[in-house]
Amino acid sequence: LNAIQFDGELKLVRDAPIPRRTGEPLVQVLAAGICSTDLEIVKGYAGFKGTLGHEFVGRVIESNDPALFGKRVAGEINCGCGACGHCRSGDQRHCPTRTVLGIKNRDGAFAEYLSLPETNLVRVPDVISDEEAVFIEPLAAALHILDQTEVEPSTQVAIIGDGKLAQLIVIALVQTRCRMTVIGKHDEKLRLAKRNAPDACLLRSAQLCAEHYGRFDCVVEASGSAAGLETALKLARPAGTIVLKSTHVGETSFDASAIVVNELNIVGSRCGRLSNAIDFISRFKPNLRNLISERLSLDQGLTGFALAENSSSMKVILQVA
Amino acid sequence: LNAIQFDGELKLVRDAPIPRRTGEPLVQVLAAGICSTDLEIVKGYAGFKGTLGHEFVGRVIESNDPALFGKRVAGEINCGCGACGHCRSGDQRHCPTRTVLGIKNRDGAFAEYLSLPETNLVRVPDVISDEEAVFIEPLAAALHILDQTEVEPSTQVAIIGDGKLAQLIVIALVQTRCRMTVIGKHDEKLRLAKRNAPDACLLRSAQLCAEHYGRFDCVVEASGSAAGLETALKLARPAGTIVLKSTHVGETSFDASAIVVNELNIVGSRCGRLSNAIDFISRFKPNLRNLISERLSLDQGLTGFALAENSSSMKVILQVA
Repeated sequence: LNAIQFDGELKLVRDAPIPRRTGEPLVQVLAAGICSTDLEIVKGYAGFKGTLGHEFVGRVIESNDPALFGKRVAGEINCGCGACGHCRSGDQRHCPTRTVLGIKNRDGAFAEYLSLPETNLVRVPDVISDEEAVFIEPLAAALHILDQTEVEPSTQVAIIGDGKLAQLIVIALVQTRCRMTVIGKHDEKLRLAKRNAPDACLLRSAQLCAEHYGRFDCVVEASGSAAGLETALKLARPAGTIVLKSTHVGETSFDASAIVVNELNIVGSRCGRLSNAIDFISRFKPNLRNLISERLSLDQGLTGFALAENSSSMKVILQVA
Repeated sequence: LNAIQFDGELKLVRDAPIPRRTGEPLVQVLAAGICSTDLEIVKGYAGFKGTLGHEFVGRVIESNDPALFGKRVAGEINCGCGACGHCRSGDQRHCPTRTVLGIKNRDGAFAEYLSLPETNLVRVPDVISDEEAVFIEPLAAALHILDQTEVEPSTQVAIIGDGKLAQLIVIALVQTRCRMTVIGKHDEKLRLAKRNAPDACLLRSAQLCAEHYGRFDCVVEASGSAAGLETALKLARPAGTIVLKSTHVGETSFDASAIVVNELNIVGSRCGRLSNAIDFISRFKPNLRNLISERLSLDQGLTGFALAENSSSMKVILQVA
């Protein structure tokens, strides 16, 4: 079994065992996407060892539930213990002993097969292609912002970042018809955001100045840089909201008194509901293909990681089957 | 006119001019309280110069509004421009060009007289004594937490801090009948909290350990120490709320990824509505007197500041008239 694994070093393993877990369906991976979180794991974030990858579409090839057998699926990546308060209230995403596909104590999607509990699998309708389906997980994370804060047509939103996640946030928020400003470092990526949100204002990070400060009702930090939170604190209006999407900023130093004096609301935002993303793609048919910069085979996975590291790249897709 | 002023150095000034402002009532100060913010200003925070003090009760001795004349009042300390979006929506607390009594471009309450706009003055009913009335402004700030986050009898609340503001937060929250834990460094102050909240759990900061982590629905950071936010991030449960009350923590360094992974909600909380505090004191008659550690005259103001700096002290009241 071929798999892209990390054990302190990133490797293409040729003889990985099939990742069976008792009672769980086995899924043949069709395609998977490389996420910034994968790049951070390779740098040692989260201390994960095993098969990487958590954005995928696959086909169920073994299942106790005959209704799932043979079906094309995406997967909720958090697997709870089922017994704690969070799990019992239906929120296994915050179970303290959860495993997370390709991130925490569970082999991931950069392999020919993966295992996930039945309840984590969501059927992908035929109108969504394999390539589009790879975006279900990260788009759900982008859409989750709208579960956490209200965005209306009059809302002034700043999105800090122009990378893969920021682009999906642009796509998610453009449907709210909010007043959007995208702040990035790469002309080409900013132009890409503009294609998906023609009314958005574009701003190079270097152009940020006092006239932009204190003006935004909602600031979404999706740059993954340590400076992003500090910038967000400046951009938000008093009593405004800052949504933090980057899981991998490391130690950040800033003056917390701005949060108090301006009574800001800072919201951490991680994974969303896959069904929301499936509905969104089916309904709005966003152009997700133009977020793909490379399509490679699983065998070319190490090259894929190298390409994904390049600051000009967008989503790298591994076509597994 | 006697006044306690700061101009890089704290002084008792004997010949300060009467602080008249066109169109504003003149208020004779009866009593005023020394707040931690005052202590921070003396350290250079906010770059303020002028008469300090923003917690006060006074009597209106000059006013265009005959209904105010002679009345005992407390004062909303933020004075907006009246023209910006925040002011027009009724929220002068966030006006970007606001003056703030004893904090920003406006002489404060450690003087025989002060000036505030009519709309900032709130009558103090006779059932509230002068000493109690000095707590209206900081108690309003404590009660403001309940405007920003829901606290119910089942809510597990941790209050980090045992100082003046933390004690008022204990008093404010005890009425919600929430499950309260007070975390502090001083046995005597923790015992004081227990007198106001007999059902509260007390915890010495040094006793904090992993078994307390991830357990609190709501963590209120009122310690004023840079480590407070980091502790709060550990104590909050996933999807929990952290309320930041300390305006004077300075640069803080922490790992922001915990906010994202645990989807925490961080809320900055500053000033509240005075009328809420007046209603609260009238209705619940909290024991505010046991929060007073010293009563001094205005002439003894410098001594008052020295005493307030002492870590074992609570509220120092200056009896002005």
